[in-house]
Parts: sequence; C-alpha cells; structure tokens
Amino acid sequence: MTQSFSTRPAGSDDWPAIWDIMEPVIAQGDSYAWEHVTPEEARAVWLDADAEVFVALDGGKVAGTYLLKPNQPGRGAHVCNAAFMVAPAAQGRGVGRAMAEDAMVRARAAGYSAMQFNLVVATNEPAVALWRQLGFGVVGRIPGGFRHAQHGLVDALIMYRDLEESP
Amino acid sequence: MTQSFSTRPAGSDDWPAIWDIMEPVIAQGDSYAWEHVTPEEARAVWLDADAEVFVALDGGKVAGTYLLKPNQPGRGAHVCNAAFMVAPAAQGRGVGRAMAEDAMVRARAAGYSAMQFNLVVATNEPAVALWRQLGFGVVGRIPGGFRHAQHGLVDALIMYRDLEESP
Repeated sequence: MTQSFSTRPAGSDDWPAIWDIMEPVIAQGDSYAWEHVTPEEARAVWLDADAEVFVALDGGKVAGTYLLKPNQPGRGAHVCNAAFMVAPAAQGRGVGRAMAEDAMVRARAAGYSAMQFNLVVATNEPAVALWRQLGFGVVGRIPGGFRHAQHGLVDALIMYRDLEESP
Repeated sequence: MTQSFSTRPAGSDDWPAIWDIMEPVIAQGDSYAWEHVTPEEARAVWLDADAEVFVALDGGKVAGTYLLKPNQPGRGAHVCNAAFMVAPAAQGRGVGRAMAEDAMVRARAAGYSAMQFNLVVATNEPAVALWRQLGFGVVGRIPGGFRHAQHGLVDALIMYRDLEESP
C-alpha cells in the first residue's frame, strides 16, 4: 500500500509545526549539523532563509518539511540543494520519500539540472538508502566531517543526482 | 628565491582594495560561482559575512585576500572553509600559496581539525596543483557543477586536508 501525502509552500503560520519537527530532529544529533539552536535561529536558517520551503501534509497535519535552494550562486546555481525533515511520529511511513519526489519535480520545473546534498551523515543508513533508491550517488566523502551525538566523528557524504536523466 | 608576504585581519578601510581584487576575479568567470555581483553584494558575501577575513600585503599594498570560516555549523564546525583571491597584477608570485599557508596556521590555532573547499573548478589547474602541493586531496567531484565563462559546464571538485597531520 502506498501512502499518499500532499505538499504545499510553507507560510509563517506553519512555523510552530515546523519547529515541532526541527527541534527533536536537531536534538537527535545524528543527521543535521545544527546544534543548540534557538527557535529564532532555526526559523532564520529554515523558514526565513533564502530558500523555497514546503510542508508535507498527512490528513491536514504537517508531517514533514523541506527546503529547496540553489546550492551555489551564479555559475553554480543550476545545481539545487534540498534538505528534508520528517516529524519523529511520522517516520517510516514514506513522508521523506514523498517529499524528495516532490522536490525533484519542483526542482525540474524550476529549471535546475541537478540536486546535491552537501552533508549526508554516513551512519544515517535509512537516508543513504533512500537517496540511492531515488537515483542519488555518492560523489564525495568528507572524512570525519560530522560529529555524531552517539558515534563521535563519522564521515559526511556528498550525494548528487542528475535531474535531466529519466527518473 | 622565496617572496615573503605578510598578512593581517582586514578592516573596513580595506574594502576598496579588496573590491579591486574581487571584481576582476569574479568577472573572469573561471574560478568563483559569484556572477554579476554589485560591490555591495560582494562586500556582504566577503568582508561582512560571518567569517574572518584577511589581506596579504606586498610592500604595504594589498595583493590578495582570504576568508576563513566554519564550513558547517555545530556538528560540522570542526572543518573550516577558506577562499582565496589574488590581485590579477600579483598572480604567479606566490601570494596564493602564502595566504593558504597562513590560513592553515590560523585554522590550526583556532582549533579546526580540517579544511575543506566546496567548489574548486576542475579546469583551474594552477589552483588544483597548488592545493595538491599543500596536502589537499580531491574527496569529491560534482559533474558539471560549474558553468565556466569559456568552457561551459565543467566539474567542480571538493578538496580537503586534515590539519592534524604534519604539514
């Protein structure tokens, strides 16, 4: 059975729901570099940053959020960057996959030719497996690039997918 | 003969000299992603960004500039990022090497354990060769990640150096 989720652009009214996702995800210390961020700092780097931000809805409730932006300015702006967070209570139900597929559709429509993730924690096996299933490959590895809350220094992967190839 | 250059932290008074370097380097379109930036935008991303900025002096004249900052927040902040620009009139005289050596000393003193460059244009052979000489290795490659002014899409390299190994 395939669960279906809808997505829409996020607005200021979504901030409490987004923070309810960001706070525990960041606190886990196993997937995002942010650490000890206040709600104001989190809002500045996610909702109010120079990115398009979306929420995934599960029966009207916000179950995830993602952002989409150029990975570099100007001469690198044809490659986008995206970041995804799933509410802990909604994990394992396909929200991340649904958001990533949605992000690729939106990125192609916006004219991006590729998508790049700059810091995929190597020990985050569910994420790495999902990105591989969605056509991303590991194009780089930063030795000890991430200080994991449980495991200490672990590698950070750079993953990449050409958006002009067939899905 | 080894040319010697000194470095010091940059201040607001250095902005005209820094812009005199940034403008032609960016206009070449062969090494930095920034494109069509105004002086105000350039100042915001270089001198006024959340980074330490330095200038290299050659007989009292500013011959280069570099910045040093964490490559990621929090759990990735032990790896620094640096960016270097040499005045076109001073190129080929070792200013870039002197700045990079200085940056590594300052980065170690600041407690960083590694240095990462996120976008080294693969066709920029002098830069790639210099980074290799200074102990950096290619840890990633983004296919067509840079839209080069002359060559179109070329690969972007991610280069990395452990700062805890002997120089």
